[in-house]
Amino acid sequence: MTALSALGLREPIAQGELRALEVAEACLRNDPGALAAWAFRDADFLRAQARGLDSHRAAGQALGPLHGIAVAVQDTIDTLDMPTARGSGLDTARRPEEDATLVGRLRQAGALLAGKSVTAEYGFPGSCSARNPLDPARIAGVAGGGAAAAVAGGEAQLALVSDGAGAVLADASYCGLVAYRPSPGRLSTRGVFALDRAIEGPAVLARDVADAALLAEVLQGFDPQDPATRRVAPEPLLRIACAEPPLAPLFAFAKTSLWDRCAAATREGLSELAEVLSEVPGGLCDEVDLPEVFDNAPVAQRRLLAVGAARALGSKLDRAPEAFSEEVSAAIAEGRGLSALDYLSANDWREVLRAGLEPIFARYDVVLTPAALGEAPLRESAPPPDGAAWNGGLLWSFCGLPAVCLPLLSGEAGLPVGVQLVARRGADAQLLRTAHWLCARVDAIMSEEVLPTGEGRTA
Amino acid sequence: MTALSALGLREPIAQGELRALEVAEACLRNDPGALAAWAFRDADFLRAQARGLDSHRAAGQALGPLHGIAVAVQDTIDTLDMPTARGSGLDTARRPEEDATLVGRLRQAGALLAGKSVTAEYGFPGSCSARNPLDPARIAGVAGGGAAAAVAGGEAQLALVSDGAGAVLADASYCGLVAYRPSPGRLSTRGVFALDRAIEGPAVLARDVADAALLAEVLQGFDPQDPATRRVAPEPLLRIACAEPPLAPLFAFAKTSLWDRCAAATREGLSELAEVLSEVPGGLCDEVDLPEVFDNAPVAQRRLLAVGAARALGSKLDRAPEAFSEEVSAAIAEGRGLSALDYLSANDWREVLRAGLEPIFARYDVVLTPAALGEAPLRESAPPPDGAAWNGGLLWSFCGLPAVCLPLLSGEAGLPVGVQLVARRGADAQLLRTAHWLCARVDAIMSEEVLPTGEGRTA
Repeated sequence: MTALSALGLREPIAQGELRALEVAEACLRNDPGALAAWAFRDADFLRAQARGLDSHRAAGQALGPLHGIAVAVQDTIDTLDMPTARGSGLDTARRPEEDATLVGRLRQAGALLAGKSVTAEYGFPGSCSARNPLDPARIAGVAGGGAAAAVAGGEAQLALVSDGAGAVLADASYCGLVAYRPSPGRLSTRGVFALDRAIEGPAVLARDVADAALLAEVLQGFDPQDPATRRVAPEPLLRIACAEPPLAPLFAFAKTSLWDRCAAATREGLSELAEVLSEVPGGLCDEVDLPEVFDNAPVAQRRLLAVGAARALGSKLDRAPEAFSEEVSAAIAEGRGLSALDYLSANDWREVLRAGLEPIFARYDVVLTPAALGEAPLRESAPPPDGAAWNGGLLWSFCGLPAVCLPLLSGEAGLPVGVQLVARRGADAQLLRTAHWLCARVDAIMSEEVLPTGEGRTA
Repeated sequence: MTALSALGLREPIAQGELRALEVAEACLRNDPGALAAWAFRDADFLRAQARGLDSHRAAGQALGPLHGIAVAVQDTIDTLDMPTARGSGLDTARRPEEDATLVGRLRQAGALLAGKSVTAEYGFPGSCSARNPLDPARIAGVAGGGAAAAVAGGEAQLALVSDGAGAVLADASYCGLVAYRPSPGRLSTRGVFALDRAIEGPAVLARDVADAALLAEVLQGFDPQDPATRRVAPEPLLRIACAEPPLAPLFAFAKTSLWDRCAAATREGLSELAEVLSEVPGGLCDEVDLPEVFDNAPVAQRRLLAVGAARALGSKLDRAPEAFSEEVSAAIAEGRGLSALDYLSANDWREVLRAGLEPIFARYDVVLTPAALGEAPLRESAPPPDGAAWNGGLLWSFCGLPAVCLPLLSGEAGLPVGVQLVARRGADAQLLRTAHWLCARVDAIMSEEVLPTGEGRTA
């Protein structure tokens, strides 16, 4: 059962063939220390939620769209009835007085809150203690590592995380999952810890694209307490994601400055995928070059993160310097030293670079690009704090573009490697549809079977 | 004819009793040097526009809502066919390649673009060379001084300005006009010069509330090129402004820290207005105290302006220091010295103070407060650069709240003194309706005639 997707569980639960308590027990089956995925998990509390949901169903009441589905919530996201320590030893006693808006929506949808997944210190894209379910000698990810381990290890079907710099794409890549980081403003950020709300935001992890779309559809929408969300009709993400595109999508293959550091298998796999797509009748993929100016993104992103850290954590550091890692202390010090003009200029880069991508999105539906360098690193060689060196999601999340990671490739050790698709801001539904399309056809494409006639575009 | 409001001219123009050319000639009647209201005005160009509009009408084509009405455009706002020097000697040759979105809407509405009204250097709330039409020995205003002189002096019926710190309320007060500064996001800022888009924005000047509502209604609405504007149905501001409120509005009288510096006549006039409103059956006005924390607004506002100046003008200053006034040079230097954390903390104050006003707006429809200290200052004693000492609009515009100035009082020399009404963000239509209500009843109220029974609220 733990191998089933959320959508795969939904029907048996609705039919009464499977109880929420059975889902909860399956999630609790692993020894909690095996993956070390949780900052907080209480088996009794999980069972109590499940019993409540089963009674609700037994009473004949309407079921929410996530009824009985277990969702891991990253420990940077506030929960009323579970501590929220944000990966810091300083905040272990922190008990929020309110749920984050997104957590409230999970409850309303009938989800089981599986626990608080372990994260890096204040969600920094640094190291995280969770083990990779596919190989415990390897990391599961960075800030979203606990969430990725929980989903990949069958301790939850879905995860809600907060993502600082697109690194959730790497988390998904390392664990063979789908990550979806929405356009800014689609998911409420109230009660979600962030150093800089402009560059950080909520994201989801799931086993496949349909599950990611399902979770995002439940979570999305206007929140009067988050001015970045808008009063617009929510899109039916799941239905659109699973629909056939009117035309086969067009891909712009961007190697980016990460390319030379990627593992050989990653380069070969991505190149082959791009090549086969380009050879489909009509030609669905072209390689595009990003100008050098895009190399400014990591520096600008780092500055915004440093200023955000100084603002959010500076006074905590002054009170308890021993509670902070060297990395976070250094970021705070850096942020304190930056001028207002440095800050504004870093922010300006976001818009400049995003505008620079417009010509690509005018021609192509999505950018195809690495999500990570390769397979999950071994625990003793965890990713360096400088995300520019390994984080395929950084550039695109800095520009505020929606992105997905799809587990389509594998590396030298046979472990998964994800590919990343990126769309224009706001084009989330089309991005998910393209992702679903690609996943459904990738085997046929990679075995170089030609796509059905008429599906390719004519030039 | 120059004494007519825009709405007063509209009917005769529509009926063919008045030609746009006659409006243009009336606007050109004054010697252009008398008020020095214009940075740029070309009489032939104005006449050519008028002839075009008259031909349009003669051909039986539909008339725009501002057909033949002369609108002054402050010289901080881009116009395709007139230079836009932004009050700086450095930019006298600047010819924008595009109209600001708002200027395009004026043209579509059939307005006569009367010229570019003179402003202070880069719209800083500093001195402006225009003379006050009511007493040429006095200033007409600060950055919006040219626009206020043009409307009050009959050289235009309406004006579109950009406002840096609520000082347009003082401009209106000095010239006996109505100013309306909308909520952020209601009017597009594309092509409108601003040092900091978060605190500066477009505003309108007119002879009465209905005219201000008419102009704002023409200008408002979604602009795909300004992400701060929203895709919502535009409100019928003119109709709402002129409608009867369902209940008589409730006023919160806030003296603010400006009170002790106000002229005696301003204090007496405002106090009397508040008192009489409070004595209406049901009681329409209470005095409210703002906590001391609101005294932080001018410092925070100054910091944002200084950082904005450093960002927008720093490189210009380095190239041509002699072209800058001491005041603007000092602001740029100040902005360069501020840290990212100073900047963010100044920005945070905006939200903190706005939240602090929520309890007032939960009980009252509008805040009643001074717009300026008193009558327009003499030219030799122009307002100091520190707006905190004289600018009644500063606090409210800093918080991003919509405000109007109404010319309801007069000072020792018999010149006008405005009162300011402020509403909750987004409640622009109700603000205009309350303003219209107050203007229509102020004579009856001030002569202490009791309001008609049933119009007052019962407690």
